[in-house]
Amino acid sequence: MASNGHDNIPDIVIGRLPIYLRALNRLADDGQEITSSHELGQRLGISSAQIRKDLSHFGGFGKQGTGYQIEYLQEKLRKVLNIDREWEVALIGVGDLGKAIAHYRGFADRGFHIACLFDSDPAKVGQEIGDYTVQPMAALQQAIQDKGIRLAMLAVPVQHAQEVANTLVESGITGILNYAPINLTVPKHIQVQYIDPVVGLQRMTYYLED
Amino acid sequence: MASNGHDNIPDIVIGRLPIYLRALNRLADDGQEITSSHELGQRLGISSAQIRKDLSHFGGFGKQGTGYQIEYLQEKLRKVLNIDREWEVALIGVGDLGKAIAHYRGFADRGFHIACLFDSDPAKVGQEIGDYTVQPMAALQQAIQDKGIRLAMLAVPVQHAQEVANTLVESGITGILNYAPINLTVPKHIQVQYIDPVVGLQRMTYYLED
Repeated sequence: MASNGHDNIPDIVIGRLPIYLRALNRLADDGQEITSSHELGQRLGISSAQIRKDLSHFGGFGKQGTGYQIEYLQEKLRKVLNIDREWEVALIGVGDLGKAIAHYRGFADRGFHIACLFDSDPAKVGQEIGDYTVQPMAALQQAIQDKGIRLAMLAVPVQHAQEVANTLVESGITGILNYAPINLTVPKHIQVQYIDPVVGLQRMTYYLED
Repeated sequence: MASNGHDNIPDIVIGRLPIYLRALNRLADDGQEITSSHELGQRLGISSAQIRKDLSHFGGFGKQGTGYQIEYLQEKLRKVLNIDREWEVALIGVGDLGKAIAHYRGFADRGFHIACLFDSDPAKVGQEIGDYTVQPMAALQQAIQDKGIRLAMLAVPVQHAQEVANTLVESGITGILNYAPINLTVPKHIQVQYIDPVVGLQRMTYYLED
């Protein structure tokens, strides 16, 4: 699964890079040009030493004492994360959640574009959502192959998630962002990331006293 | 932040418990009564040794060779995670995303109940969503205090997220599930979990070849 020549970077470090980039984007939006591992650490609740260590995997982004040039670091992180280009994403399931995803404006400026929508419900097929028409599941494989799409967001009911994931993998999708609260079983070369609000809530209640 | 007398459990272990519970729920729904660390590991892409080690923090849930009683392990994990009760949650922001969250049926059977909705948009205030009426932000503090709510889901536009988070903290909220793509600055005793689909997508594109 490695790329970019950074074969030995732990996945947990890769997982923090989008968080760093998100914080940098925010600082840049506020008009700031330079930051430090200390400032980033304060914002993110991560130690500055950890941030420096994480970034050092990808070469020297800043000098001790002078801080990081935000724009330069954004560019480098985008390159490392392969989002110095735009990725097309297929969205499967346009119920309440799928519609909210389709309308979310936060994808475009961060490297992603929802390029096609699918649903198994005949009542939803043909609906216009944003610039796109909802297509039937029968059209999925061909559409994904024609467009060479590699990423999909899965927003179908839990009982259909594994079956649809299988179809996605057969169609050439190699990365699935799964909103259904179920762990998918997929071949080793397929990546899955999970969005499950209940997992986040349960992780917090552990720490709450009655 | 520790509770349950398990003060020394690493947070990363706590983070995996909801994932284990989710997998157990699925197995139980399928009518299965016994599982093993091996089976769970296969489903979750986590080593069986890791699972056994994680669960051993909370006492012996199973015996080598006999596997785990699913119902018993579900109960124990719910207790550890403090979800052997129901938590009321405030939802702030009822745009497309907030509405999808409000309509999501996956909270109730996993320990959570959205008990009040707020929005700053006068056009949204007064709308009925599910069993609840959207309230103005001015009512937030009082409502949260009256109900003794500790958890909030934040689904407001990014430029308002920090300000609303401050109000939530002042109102007595101690856990925030933040859907806005910004790291919140909060006092140390406040927990924040993030839902950001772009972070999940960017984590996958790192591994994708062009």
